[in-house]
Amino acid sequence: MKKIKPINDARKTGTDLVFSAIRQNSPTPRIDIVKQTGLSPATVTSITADLILNGLIEEVPAVKSTNYQKRGRPRVDLKIRGDAHLVVGMQLTDKMATVVIVDFDGKQISDYSLPSAKPVRSALETVDLLEKALRKSLENANLKIADISGVGIGIPGIVDGPAGYVYWSPTISDREIFLQDMLVDRLDIPVFLDNDANLVAIAEQRFGLGREARNFIVVSVEEGVGMGIVIDGKLYRGSHGCGAELGHTKVHLDGALCRCGQRGCLEAYVGDYALLREAGTALEALSGKSAELQMDILLNEAKKGNQMAASIVERAGRMFAMGLANVVNIFAPELIILAGRRMQYDYLYHDGMIAEMKKSIMQVGAPSPEVRVHKWGDLMWTMGAAAFAIDGVSEIALKDLN
Amino acid sequence: MKKIKPINDARKTGTDLVFSAIRQNSPTPRIDIVKQTGLSPATVTSITADLILNGLIEEVPAVKSTNYQKRGRPRVDLKIRGDAHLVVGMQLTDKMATVVIVDFDGKQISDYSLPSAKPVRSALETVDLLEKALRKSLENANLKIADISGVGIGIPGIVDGPAGYVYWSPTISDREIFLQDMLVDRLDIPVFLDNDANLVAIAEQRFGLGREARNFIVVSVEEGVGMGIVIDGKLYRGSHGCGAELGHTKVHLDGALCRCGQRGCLEAYVGDYALLREAGTALEALSGKSAELQMDILLNEAKKGNQMAASIVERAGRMFAMGLANVVNIFAPELIILAGRRMQYDYLYHDGMIAEMKKSIMQVGAPSPEVRVHKWGDLMWTMGAAAFAIDGVSEIALKDLN
Repeated sequence: MKKIKPINDARKTGTDLVFSAIRQNSPTPRIDIVKQTGLSPATVTSITADLILNGLIEEVPAVKSTNYQKRGRPRVDLKIRGDAHLVVGMQLTDKMATVVIVDFDGKQISDYSLPSAKPVRSALETVDLLEKALRKSLENANLKIADISGVGIGIPGIVDGPAGYVYWSPTISDREIFLQDMLVDRLDIPVFLDNDANLVAIAEQRFGLGREARNFIVVSVEEGVGMGIVIDGKLYRGSHGCGAELGHTKVHLDGALCRCGQRGCLEAYVGDYALLREAGTALEALSGKSAELQMDILLNEAKKGNQMAASIVERAGRMFAMGLANVVNIFAPELIILAGRRMQYDYLYHDGMIAEMKKSIMQVGAPSPEVRVHKWGDLMWTMGAAAFAIDGVSEIALKDLN
Repeated sequence: MKKIKPINDARKTGTDLVFSAIRQNSPTPRIDIVKQTGLSPATVTSITADLILNGLIEEVPAVKSTNYQKRGRPRVDLKIRGDAHLVVGMQLTDKMATVVIVDFDGKQISDYSLPSAKPVRSALETVDLLEKALRKSLENANLKIADISGVGIGIPGIVDGPAGYVYWSPTISDREIFLQDMLVDRLDIPVFLDNDANLVAIAEQRFGLGREARNFIVVSVEEGVGMGIVIDGKLYRGSHGCGAELGHTKVHLDGALCRCGQRGCLEAYVGDYALLREAGTALEALSGKSAELQMDILLNEAKKGNQMAASIVERAGRMFAMGLANVVNIFAPELIILAGRRMQYDYLYHDGMIAEMKKSIMQVGAPSPEVRVHKWGDLMWTMGAAAFAIDGVSEIALKDLN
């Protein structure tokens, strides 16, 4: 017999519904929670009383005065109580581990980066680096590990988030490791692990441009190409929990060699390393410089009109448009968010690229998706990890309540 | 204030849950419905009594004897009552309109095809053709339109199913037409319209290889390339209701010219017309023959070792592998179903193509999706439309009950 798998939302309790309504619109009056959840006013009053009693939310003076009351009690809004929990977001890259400490309402307390000379580390070295960065950041903020309710960590590569399992990461030499378990053993607090691009999608949904959309994708280009997909308000993870791969979709049969060992991947045309391996042919001035500096020189030369440099950058933009159009054809999202440091440069998101992308999607009267560029600061990835940790800690806190 | 959009399943009533549990496993004992829906035995008994009273389901002698009872009432199963409704599925192509009449349990009553000499018709001619095919098929089966509870129709092209709106179809000269409304005005019975590949996905989910999977894609190659995506048991429609496009994802920058006017589309390498425009260079024997016959000759010549013919077919297979790998990288489905008449030939689904596809997806320990080939008969598309009509008629019948 085939078992009907219950969908997540059907199992959500009234408490879950009320809490997420408050998180989404915090601060918000009770009457709006009633409208949003469809629960009765009495139920909402009882649940919010319980949440206040347990310190997860608090009353604050009303900021919305749409229904101004002349008499009676002063109106109050409900918001997430920042002091309820401290959580940590961390991002691992080939160059460093970055940490941000936030309160339960997402307010940033402090941040810290620990550089690492070794771009690819063993599983054990990875755990060491993450622990060291966490302890240093807590020390700087006069906090102990016991003060923290959970840590969210973003890792590049193929990560099964729900299982806390890393199939492969470009910054970890070991493959197929239960990294979440290793970190829980070491730190003895809840750890939530996921692919870094998925966490950027969660950050956009929670704090950023994705708050109003039900179906959107977030694409980030830095050393590699990352993508997170949100369908019907939920992160899409695919059948093995790892979510979507954009960087390794193919844009050319038997094309350029990719870091992953295959040929013709989008990343092999638009990733930093892809541009730099052609850059040596165009510009002699690059040798001996850091990858970051080389990228700056290449992009500036292209802008100044160096034809070979411009040719490298232009092809990358066109390939990016093609890869993006393929996702749009397959997913038809309402919104595409281009995020990340690389968006500071305009070669990937200029109007010409977006026009080329729109030219390559089926044009038959249906509206094209909106494309928005989000020039996050350096903490984009880390704030995504923090948002993920808040989700995880909330789930634990509500489970204790239910 | 942002309104939390209620998800479909959350609004499902107990009656909806019980009815869909019966459809999924028909015939099935009451105890299994209790287990599947999570409803109490008393509720299930009351709902099924109501459904029997209204003639939508019926009791039949139990076929499953897992819990053999020695004494007491003979055990019964519940099944959908075929006689409850008659519905029609129709498929429109450039060559004909096909009709199948089925009962409420999906049992085929009769089928009929009306050829059409005109491959591209106006909106009005399309309605005329569909009406004529429907009336002829009913006449052959000694039925009247009033005997039919609903018609499902599959149309190639970009169709917004929920809106009953055709943005564009290769077989209709008019664009952006409210075809569903036009048909309802003409026929005066409920009409359910969708893209034909989406309906094949529904057919696979209801009758075929997709019955056990929650996340799968169905790819069909004939004149064009179609795809239907099922995520978490539901057809994925994207933000404008039209679902996913595989045929017009790009596999080559500035590549071969496609019927849609763009360049480098997958369809421009693997669709029948794409193969045939190169076939003239390889084989003189083709001129003056029908497209279908030309395809047969080309594929047979390739099989017999004609190198130019083989080169055409081989490239199509490799491009198909690449386009399919892109969907797998983006979606990570658990199952890919290759369906349709073209699957009778092996150039698109031979082991080499599947191996090449698997070589082009991220290989990092995560399991590859299963690939299955479904060599449906000619009625595949039409049965999909019938399944869709059963869904629509069920929804109407249950709404009347609730």
